Amino acid sequence: MKSTYVENEKELAAVHATAMVKNGMIVGLGSGSTSAYMIKELGENVKKGLAITGVPSSKKTAQLAQEVGIPIITLEEAGFLDINIDGADEFDTEFRLIKGGGGALLREKILADNSRFNVIIADSSKQVSKLGAYKLPLEAIPFATANIIKKLTGMHLKPMLRQTNGETYKTDENNFIVDIDISDIRDLEKLNRNLLHIPGVVETGLFLESTDIIIMGKRDKIVVFNAKESS
Amino acid sequence: MKSTYVENEKELAAVHATAMVKNGMIVGLGSGSTSAYMIKELGENVKKGLAITGVPSSKKTAQLAQEVGIPIITLEEAGFLDINIDGADEFDTEFRLIKGGGGALLREKILADNSRFNVIIADSSKQVSKLGAYKLPLEAIPFATANIIKKLTGMHLKPMLRQTNGETYKTDENNFIVDIDISDIRDLEKLNRNLLHIPGVVETGLFLESTDIIIMGKRDKIVVFNAKESS
Repeated sequence: MKSTYVENEKELAAVHATAMVKNGMIVGLGSGSTSAYMIKELGENVKKGLAITGVPSSKKTAQLAQEVGIPIITLEEAGFLDINIDGADEFDTEFRLIKGGGGALLREKILADNSRFNVIIADSSKQVSKLGAYKLPLEAIPFATANIIKKLTGMHLKPMLRQTNGETYKTDENNFIVDIDISDIRDLEKLNRNLLHIPGVVETGLFLESTDIIIMGKRDKIVVFNAKESS
Repeated sequence: MKSTYVENEKELAAVHATAMVKNGMIVGLGSGSTSAYMIKELGENVKKGLAITGVPSSKKTAQLAQEVGIPIITLEEAGFLDINIDGADEFDTEFRLIKGGGGALLREKILADNSRFNVIIADSSKQVSKLGAYKLPLEAIPFATANIIKKLTGMHLKPMLRQTNGETYKTDENNFIVDIDISDIRDLEKLNRNLLHIPGVVETGLFLESTDIIIMGKRDKIVVFNAKESS
């Protein structure tokens, strides 16, 4: 059964990544199911004496970190992160990611942008030859969202306003999420620029340059992709 | 006295612009002191029988529009604007603007981006040969603002977090405003792209492409700059 492997692979990658977290570090804590394994493992290590401080990327992650005993501070208090560990919805061979399935893409991107080292943890289903089977999430200002959706329709990106339990999903910043189809897009850098240029689009779930290392669980093994070695 | 002229010039430009507003139009209503003259004049015209609908660019403008009797709807309800009339803090010979002195740059930019025709109204002190004597406002996510300020400092842009009455200013979207010094910058398009690329920067007060016409009061005269004629 695939689903069994997936959970096992997530946990394997997450636990492996925590070995990179050393005493005294300020650690960016990602959001989503793979990050949850990482946070729980870090909590165990804290109980065994590891002295770290976490900066959560969402309210949900903040709550989990506190439950497992990781002291947390804000990004403003942290200044800069030593390491940031987060999941991804997809990654390609050029270390480019789609993120934001869980809706926390804005704060996740801010943490990635303010960390010395960025680690992505993932199960093997997240590895793709071309990004775009997964929908790309955009964070959008509610005031502009209906018009943004029209514009994205005109760009042939098949936008969908994200709903949860019959209500429009709201991010931690009280914005909306619009999921678009980028499976036909070749130039992701250009797409990203064009999307950010639309007034009311706050951020995209395309992480094109930030990743240093990807740790992937594959069955019962760990595969590590290092951006420096591959470039 | 300069200040006497300034108010007179603002009102002249504002009143002149309202002649472009015809029966049945959906009108974007800017924010700030020059727009206030325009909104009051439109209110007078509505009392005389002009049938229009306004889309306000700020909570303050919404309140003023309601006070003077202009029916208002949301951008979502409007879909698209026939005309958008707004002020500017500076404009140059290429119809590029700095906006956002009043803090409403995000919604103002969204309206400009969703209007068939964009009119800027200004007194003659707003005309400059090079943008940047005025500070450029950026709207920033509070979660990231301290780090954005550090980054902007590294870019030699002398960022200042906007304060009002001893408190950090909050926009209608509950974001912060950071004012930066762009007087040394030559390539504004590139600057704008780089600023929008910083995670947590929601929008900039650089309006580089949207303006169709600028109506400027100069002493007791009106000067009209038309982007189509000048290009």
